[in-house]
Amino acid sequence: MDFGLINSEQLKHLSVEELNSYSAYLRERIIDVTKKNGGHLSSNLGAVELTVALHYVFDMPKDKVIWDVGHQTYAHKFITNRGELMSSLRTDGGASGFPSSKESEFDTFITGHSGTSLSMALGLSRARDINGSDEKVVAVVGDGAFTSGEIYEALNDLGDRPTPLIIVLNDNKMSISRNVGAMSKYFNKLRVNKNFVDLKSDFKTDLNGLPFVGKPLVRALTGVKNKVKGSVIGNKFFERFGLKYYGPYDGHNISDMINALSLAATSSKPVIIHFLTQKGKGLVDAELHPDAYHGISPIGETKQKSMSAVAGQTLIELAEKENIAVVTAAMSDGLCFNNFAEKFPDRFFDVAIAEQHAVSFCAGLAKSGVKPFFGVYSTFLQRGFDQVLHDVCLNNLPVTFLIDRAGAVGADGVTHQGIFDLSYLSLIPNLVIASPKDGRELKALMEFSLGVNRPMAIRYAKSYEADFEVQDNIELGKWEVLINSNSPITILAVGRTNEIAAKIKNATIVNARFIKPLDTQYLDTLSGTVITLEDNILHGGFGQAVKDYLYGKCKVINIGHKNEFCDIRSIQKTYFSSGLTVDNIQKIVDSELSSLEKHAKL
Amino acid sequence: MDFGLINSEQLKHLSVEELNSYSAYLRERIIDVTKKNGGHLSSNLGAVELTVALHYVFDMPKDKVIWDVGHQTYAHKFITNRGELMSSLRTDGGASGFPSSKESEFDTFITGHSGTSLSMALGLSRARDINGSDEKVVAVVGDGAFTSGEIYEALNDLGDRPTPLIIVLNDNKMSISRNVGAMSKYFNKLRVNKNFVDLKSDFKTDLNGLPFVGKPLVRALTGVKNKVKGSVIGNKFFERFGLKYYGPYDGHNISDMINALSLAATSSKPVIIHFLTQKGKGLVDAELHPDAYHGISPIGETKQKSMSAVAGQTLIELAEKENIAVVTAAMSDGLCFNNFAEKFPDRFFDVAIAEQHAVSFCAGLAKSGVKPFFGVYSTFLQRGFDQVLHDVCLNNLPVTFLIDRAGAVGADGVTHQGIFDLSYLSLIPNLVIASPKDGRELKALMEFSLGVNRPMAIRYAKSYEADFEVQDNIELGKWEVLINSNSPITILAVGRTNEIAAKIKNATIVNARFIKPLDTQYLDTLSGTVITLEDNILHGGFGQAVKDYLYGKCKVINIGHKNEFCDIRSIQKTYFSSGLTVDNIQKIVDSELSSLEKHAKL
Repeated sequence: MDFGLINSEQLKHLSVEELNSYSAYLRERIIDVTKKNGGHLSSNLGAVELTVALHYVFDMPKDKVIWDVGHQTYAHKFITNRGELMSSLRTDGGASGFPSSKESEFDTFITGHSGTSLSMALGLSRARDINGSDEKVVAVVGDGAFTSGEIYEALNDLGDRPTPLIIVLNDNKMSISRNVGAMSKYFNKLRVNKNFVDLKSDFKTDLNGLPFVGKPLVRALTGVKNKVKGSVIGNKFFERFGLKYYGPYDGHNISDMINALSLAATSSKPVIIHFLTQKGKGLVDAELHPDAYHGISPIGETKQKSMSAVAGQTLIELAEKENIAVVTAAMSDGLCFNNFAEKFPDRFFDVAIAEQHAVSFCAGLAKSGVKPFFGVYSTFLQRGFDQVLHDVCLNNLPVTFLIDRAGAVGADGVTHQGIFDLSYLSLIPNLVIASPKDGRELKALMEFSLGVNRPMAIRYAKSYEADFEVQDNIELGKWEVLINSNSPITILAVGRTNEIAAKIKNATIVNARFIKPLDTQYLDTLSGTVITLEDNILHGGFGQAVKDYLYGKCKVINIGHKNEFCDIRSIQKTYFSSGLTVDNIQKIVDSELSSLEKHAKL
Repeated sequence: MDFGLINSEQLKHLSVEELNSYSAYLRERIIDVTKKNGGHLSSNLGAVELTVALHYVFDMPKDKVIWDVGHQTYAHKFITNRGELMSSLRTDGGASGFPSSKESEFDTFITGHSGTSLSMALGLSRARDINGSDEKVVAVVGDGAFTSGEIYEALNDLGDRPTPLIIVLNDNKMSISRNVGAMSKYFNKLRVNKNFVDLKSDFKTDLNGLPFVGKPLVRALTGVKNKVKGSVIGNKFFERFGLKYYGPYDGHNISDMINALSLAATSSKPVIIHFLTQKGKGLVDAELHPDAYHGISPIGETKQKSMSAVAGQTLIELAEKENIAVVTAAMSDGLCFNNFAEKFPDRFFDVAIAEQHAVSFCAGLAKSGVKPFFGVYSTFLQRGFDQVLHDVCLNNLPVTFLIDRAGAVGADGVTHQGIFDLSYLSLIPNLVIASPKDGRELKALMEFSLGVNRPMAIRYAKSYEADFEVQDNIELGKWEVLINSNSPITILAVGRTNEIAAKIKNATIVNARFIKPLDTQYLDTLSGTVITLEDNILHGGFGQAVKDYLYGKCKVINIGHKNEFCDIRSIQKTYFSSGLTVDNIQKIVDSELSSLEKHAKL
């Protein structure tokens, strides 16, 4: 059998044995492509059988399966005619590492953030009810996403006005890092329940020899529904929200999962089915260290220096002398906070995937004199926008936001770009915004934030080339001249773009380390042409603020990302596409110089 | 006894009888001031005894009481030396209608949005643990706020690592409108529990004759703890989060509440105490119609025409011929959606105080061909920022956002200003943003949004003066010339500011009905001076985008709100403070004209 040609429809005609072999094949393909291109290895290996079972039972794309976050959809992509596309996973022109309705009608939405699947699924279900159609709607939610407040908002709404909808709880016992929170403890209880349902043995008599051919099976199962009902564990928590709970089942036993999902598909009420899966299933290394394999880099990728590591190390040094606390929303690994967590457990708070809570929580810490550093990826801080504005900045509390993965992020693509933060943060009153050019400056800015007594955001990319020689002392709203040329051209560079700026000739190069407040004293000295560089969209960003300030005084050229969603999956290419290259900027400088010279001659 | 002089400290020395009389006094003061100045009458009347009991038991401001939202703090303000300030409630220089740490050290934070209190309280508690101090921390949370996802994120975190913290569930059986959701049903079950605890009768023997003098009582109560423990209702839901649940108790029986709170104050674990209160308690009208009294306007205030009413009526007309659905996050009254809800219950969704969910839910509806209109106050849409960007706009789904209470909001003040939306929405790719000058245009824009097949935001203030005569057809990105003068001065006005612009002489007046995309075709025709008007902060708003586009071609003057939080409590004064007045703008026009003339003569 050529598994490479199997698709969602054909898969329904395979036997359980064949489905198992097919799963093994998918697992190999996933390992191969992830080793080559990087990606979310563990979670994808854990979801192979679940994905196969979902395609067996449901008629996609008519039936809608919404994957929460969507980082676990590699098997789904192989099954839905994207084998070739997957060989160039996470690269331009290849498959996205997340669901994408642009890639395939089998992906209902483009997603990448946590906790939204149930809300979207409820929207699809209620639209179905309004339209009078009959498609099934399934939300596949990891246990980690259950720490996200939006899931609870959706559960509350669903419970208010129930409609058929299937929640698949893909329980792999961790979100990205250690799963935290009361819900995690609660899932633990469910897992160890002595009534763990072994559907296979329950159903041996009924199902042995039954042909696995989709619809007929569902009908066959309907007859034995009562028996299944009797075997499930009553579950109070989910019943509060009007959900019938079934499980937990072995999330790697395809025939059990097919039975359970088939049953769920016939329910006229919303149901939640609990599957226990193993992150990294099938790859020994990943099973033992699923954290390390959550998002792996392609083998052999050359590494730059890690900004995140500088942040993590600096926090440890600060904690030794200052009353600081460190907060993360389930991203301790990526942020390099694990050492801090080990050294200062009493001052380290992983609040789970809950950015809203994390921000308001920091407001509380700050109010009582503990200095909080909230480490967060740029794209995820969007989730706490109102709390940053209302709870922290309106109250003018000294919370420091360590905004990692700012700017272009590369392979993760459009759902994870950190290219909006300068715009959505600059509009917030009271907030100081800074961006370091290198690791030494990041450290200095973090130290500086201890004394600033205002909310402060420090945004930086994951990595940097090398430390600069120039390291001026930090002063609020003061920039740093890196190269003082006797030139009518001034380049104002934010953060990582200083690496490019430093290679430009015949211009004065300034590290605009504060995006807000602007160094207006310096701006007042300028004439000629000013070029701004930022790893952010242009609308509402640094350059526009400079242009606004210098209106009528200088010629201002803003270079940054276009005001659109950006699905370029390489940082270098994104920079290139936005004109953030030495070549392009040097050309602009040279052309400005010659036109200024011409002008002077006239 | 002169109740006007009683404060938090003195109140601790009153007898229960005196506390009841004092509560009656507070109730009268609240009714008086609210009738005069407007405000949240019902919720404040419902919380009088609860507030008195909290001040009796806790040592504020050392002990921290965080009021969720904070619209129920009038009694608290009277008790904390703000009697005089309260007589000018909700006006400039008077008391804010919400907690304000600027007003009093008894208010820990400035707040006004829902669902954040527990996160902040948890931050205060963990800071206390780090600092080794011993203050108590109390979060007073309404049943409505329990539909907010952030509360759940905080519960999850608290359950993960418990610390002493008291949650007071102020259960008045409704949020602003009818309380919705599964949690609401669940609270209903708790309320009718036949074991409703009558603490008074339980404790008659123990407490009769005990002097109500604070600390001694707490010590006295500690001795009878076990008895109380036996009488409370075990509660599974909250126990999941490691909370001990006590209640429900009568939230107007001061002595019961003092007993319960005193007990809670001694707990080494987090507890939740459930009080049943009655919105509008003590005012017959408000008890019968608490909705109508949620936020009342001062008696005798002259009313303008209601934009919200136009939106509500237009939705009804659209629903008669189109497959639309209407979504609100618990603001049906304020948005004038009640008639729609009655006529089209199957296409009306009040998802409770859950803006995040509401937005992703709309993405689901739109994907399956039902056209959603999400009605939301400008300030509350901040809560769904990531979902607007990620779930709706990245997916380019045709959701229409009806953004009410945009711009300056007047009496509600700094926590509710709708002056950020043009900035935080303009930065989002794919989103169309429009703002109508009057009711007729609002209706036309809503009709237009049916065909635009993209996400679209329509933002408007609560009210408007009158419909304009000019009503051009709507075309995407095309503006409307209201007054065509032969003048080198052009005024581009957004939404409500057209009312001012129309009164300016010697300038061409343009209704810039689309903020995004800009009418660049029109902008390309301009020379001379361009003045932009918007009821939004300047940073990242409409004017800056125009200035950016016209850079080097025209002189551009942006008029809008300063880039700061604005606590001016009158719309008129806010406009005045920002230069959004006929006088100021006319002066600018005249001065520009004369300098252009001078320039021409030279």
